[in-house]
Amino acid sequence: MKNNTLVRLLPAWQWLKTYKAADMQADTIASIVFTIMVIPQSLAYAMLAGLPAITGLYASILPSILYSLFGTSRILAVGPVAITSVMTASAVLPFATVGTDQYATIAILLALLSGTMLLILSILRLGFLTNLLSHPVISGFISASALLIILGQVKHLLGVHTYGDTLIPLVSSLAKHIHNTNIPTLVLSIASITSLVLMKRYFPSLLKALGCSSKTVQLFGKSGSILVVAGTTIAVGVFSLDRLGVSIIGAVSSSIPTLKISAVNLSVLKELLPSAFLISIVGFVGSVSVAQTYAAKYRQDIDPNQELMGLGMANIGSALCGAFPVTGGFSRTVLNAESGAKSPMTGIISALLILLTLLFLTPLFYYLPTAILSSIISISMLKLVNIGDVKQLWRFSKKEAILLLVTFFVVLLDGMETGLIAGVVLSLLFFLWHTSHPHIAIVGRVPGTEHFRNEQRFAVEKHPHILTIRIDENLFFANARVLEDRLQTIVSQNTDIKHLILMCNAVNMIDASAMQSLEKIVVRLSDSGVKLHLSEVKGPVMDKLKGTQLLNTLTGEVFLTQHQAIQKLEKRCGDEQEDQ
Amino acid sequence: MKNNTLVRLLPAWQWLKTYKAADMQADTIASIVFTIMVIPQSLAYAMLAGLPAITGLYASILPSILYSLFGTSRILAVGPVAITSVMTASAVLPFATVGTDQYATIAILLALLSGTMLLILSILRLGFLTNLLSHPVISGFISASALLIILGQVKHLLGVHTYGDTLIPLVSSLAKHIHNTNIPTLVLSIASITSLVLMKRYFPSLLKALGCSSKTVQLFGKSGSILVVAGTTIAVGVFSLDRLGVSIIGAVSSSIPTLKISAVNLSVLKELLPSAFLISIVGFVGSVSVAQTYAAKYRQDIDPNQELMGLGMANIGSALCGAFPVTGGFSRTVLNAESGAKSPMTGIISALLILLTLLFLTPLFYYLPTAILSSIISISMLKLVNIGDVKQLWRFSKKEAILLLVTFFVVLLDGMETGLIAGVVLSLLFFLWHTSHPHIAIVGRVPGTEHFRNEQRFAVEKHPHILTIRIDENLFFANARVLEDRLQTIVSQNTDIKHLILMCNAVNMIDASAMQSLEKIVVRLSDSGVKLHLSEVKGPVMDKLKGTQLLNTLTGEVFLTQHQAIQKLEKRCGDEQEDQ
Repeated sequence: MKNNTLVRLLPAWQWLKTYKAADMQADTIASIVFTIMVIPQSLAYAMLAGLPAITGLYASILPSILYSLFGTSRILAVGPVAITSVMTASAVLPFATVGTDQYATIAILLALLSGTMLLILSILRLGFLTNLLSHPVISGFISASALLIILGQVKHLLGVHTYGDTLIPLVSSLAKHIHNTNIPTLVLSIASITSLVLMKRYFPSLLKALGCSSKTVQLFGKSGSILVVAGTTIAVGVFSLDRLGVSIIGAVSSSIPTLKISAVNLSVLKELLPSAFLISIVGFVGSVSVAQTYAAKYRQDIDPNQELMGLGMANIGSALCGAFPVTGGFSRTVLNAESGAKSPMTGIISALLILLTLLFLTPLFYYLPTAILSSIISISMLKLVNIGDVKQLWRFSKKEAILLLVTFFVVLLDGMETGLIAGVVLSLLFFLWHTSHPHIAIVGRVPGTEHFRNEQRFAVEKHPHILTIRIDENLFFANARVLEDRLQTIVSQNTDIKHLILMCNAVNMIDASAMQSLEKIVVRLSDSGVKLHLSEVKGPVMDKLKGTQLLNTLTGEVFLTQHQAIQKLEKRCGDEQEDQ
Repeated sequence: MKNNTLVRLLPAWQWLKTYKAADMQADTIASIVFTIMVIPQSLAYAMLAGLPAITGLYASILPSILYSLFGTSRILAVGPVAITSVMTASAVLPFATVGTDQYATIAILLALLSGTMLLILSILRLGFLTNLLSHPVISGFISASALLIILGQVKHLLGVHTYGDTLIPLVSSLAKHIHNTNIPTLVLSIASITSLVLMKRYFPSLLKALGCSSKTVQLFGKSGSILVVAGTTIAVGVFSLDRLGVSIIGAVSSSIPTLKISAVNLSVLKELLPSAFLISIVGFVGSVSVAQTYAAKYRQDIDPNQELMGLGMANIGSALCGAFPVTGGFSRTVLNAESGAKSPMTGIISALLILLTLLFLTPLFYYLPTAILSSIISISMLKLVNIGDVKQLWRFSKKEAILLLVTFFVVLLDGMETGLIAGVVLSLLFFLWHTSHPHIAIVGRVPGTEHFRNEQRFAVEKHPHILTIRIDENLFFANARVLEDRLQTIVSQNTDIKHLILMCNAVNMIDASAMQSLEKIVVRLSDSGVKLHLSEVKGPVMDKLKGTQLLNTLTGEVFLTQHQAIQKLEKRCGDEQEDQ
């Protein structure tokens, strides 16, 4: 795969070396379409992060270029994403007020920390940590976060003030202020949402009806929302709706925010670390999932470890642009793919186009109403609230459905970070519970065969002095002591037995805790006058056992097959009886 | 097992109903021997907890009686234990100064919390949580704690002041104050340690030489330390060594300390919870281990869940006696067994004997020097420092040896609680790493058989359009995404394949995350023109799969055996080729 050091350091080399001038034309067209469509989304998600909407464009320049150079997906679009943006807002809020320099600085710091962490995870190859986020936890987390985001947008849609970032303060402040609803804003919001929904559904048909070629329809079918954004902006400008209380973006600051080291101290830095970590892994998991979906379509390959590097660089780039944490987004990537992007070059070209927009076109955004951005956010978030998932899970596994619901409600009531942590801890506990209760069967020979099966499911033959136990689980610390208990119970209930065989065909792994438990079991069984034997130990497990105390203290033997074990031990029991 | 409600509520009923008056005589003798031998230990461990030595006797009354009634071990002796005592000291120290009423109150509160937690764990059947303590973590924890305990005793052995409860403050304060060493105390300490060691080794031979019967030797062989304690106490009294700076127990308060609710507030209570939890589980794990060792000898059975109940009641009893957290101890139980204890009745009788001691014999302890108690503690702790264990582990598994060392050094440098938590978190991470990197083999048919083996170990036959992959691990959240990556990589490297078979004979369990990953894999493979099939799915896993989305979207089939799968698919590939 990695044919030289250059490719390892700069994966872009792989596609750059075969990149042809002819590709440039197609990529430029794709980039123009993508840039036009992605701008409103970028503005909206910056607002979600509690930052001036224009910051969303800053966050789309360097991150996109750096990911194109260091990432492994050919199609993933990196920039502001709803979930990480709102996580940014909840992380920054305890330290600063929205709109202040302090707020911008802490958001930048968060991007820097998040990027650094992703790089560290990449260098130490710790990407597996993201596996902690199980499907039910992610599902509950995303549904609840999307609901919170929508609730948070209501203030922009109604033109009122609400506060808080969890369910109860949001709803109660909304109830308190709803009578202050700004009617022009409300009307604008309803109009925006309605036209966005209609555009989404009927714009391609409209284009077709207008006689556009199928290629044009394919390219611009999803760009109806741009018309709505442009339309509402013009309407606000023409009718001076801002004077009636409709909130607009207004003049854009000409200087980009930078990290003012004086504004932060070490204790803030330390307190930001957990948030930065959670933003990093949530962003990474979402991004890799999208990248893999698209990679599969083109039989390409994603290297998760290199993805950590690419996203890490992107976030550091975002910090350098004075923006906030970014990641690979689902809706951004859909737009990119639909614009016809084929190579990471589109990421570079569209970044340059956004830079041009920033330099020359910001006056166009002056009258852009925040209500339209909130409408865009609300519509896209509504798709993420997935109730079917919990129903389906409930049928599959009650425990995992409960995991989803716990994550969901903790996020709603106590915020995204607590919810995520609660979900991860609970899934580890559930898993621990599961492996702590391994399936243990007493087995016997199926008559006339060399097969040994569970005595509760089959009519099997057993020798009165020999008991065989099969453990259907790896032996490690989470179940080592359970094994001790269960064997002790079984032996105390079967006082006639002289030989206990542990059939190990389902044991793929053994650790020191299990080894120690087995040593204890050997001694205890020996105290009870029972010999312990092992059978069908797998190769890798046997390698581990060699040279350990266990094999020295083992009172019985290690048999290659269960059949050999029974044959030999039955014979020995017979001999002993004759001796008596 | 549990033949009626009475036994379930009061396990003692099982032995009480068959208890005969004749047993009483033997048990009384055993109890007297045990009581004499256990008193110095109890005093020493109370001192370790930072409490007046006499509290160790309070902690040996109700806890012992309650455990006898509610526990399941017939021989386990419950009372103050070194590790939990020193954990108590580190938990209480941040809130109070040794010797104050506040200190005693918080220790009582800790016993109450610890007892309540054990009861809750028992009622909710959460005993499996203690499985989090893997063998390397416990080993590193015990060795480091024992070293810290010994270092903490040096102040009593030298008669100087030291402070802190971790390595650096202990050593540095010792270096600072060592010139203040009290010579009489030092002499006494050296004499005590020497005679304790000699008594341990030669007392049984001495008794034999004096013409004692072998039964007497067996009963009193271990009680040499009592003579040393008595001897030093008398020496201190006769020569008034206390006036030369030798620290003695002195007069014992006639009132037992009680929980003064006024001395604690809710925030203290909240901050004590983690410590109480850790003390509970460490105590429980140690206690159950001892109980099981003895239960095995007599082919008895221990019910870990009922043990939680027994130890929970014991701790609540300790709080009622004005004492501190207790548990089942290894050295106490050894003494109990060697005294000839056969039934839990000895726990009850010896508790009453200790009560009598408290009521009438405390003046005997007036001149008892703390240096002798510290000598007893140091000698018994030295046995717990286990260096051989890390050497053995290193050979078995480097990773687990590192786990031991990390726990060891974090305990030494940052204290017992942090060390324990670091160890648990690290062992979970190691485990997660392991399951995140499951063994995945590409398998083929061993020529002339129906067996399918790893192509890297066997010369096997493979069809160019069919690839079979065997996963040697349960499929769950920790490796679900890894499976996606690996399959994606394999498919991108084998562009000719049309059928991918997942051989599931080593999969004992599947969760929703793995299910979702499989669904994604099906769609992605289908995008790449590859059909996914399953073979040899185990019964319980198949039960789970039934009625899920996966079976509906599966592009291939589920085959009972791998052989059937290959036969059918090879035929199909052949047909397709003929068609072309």
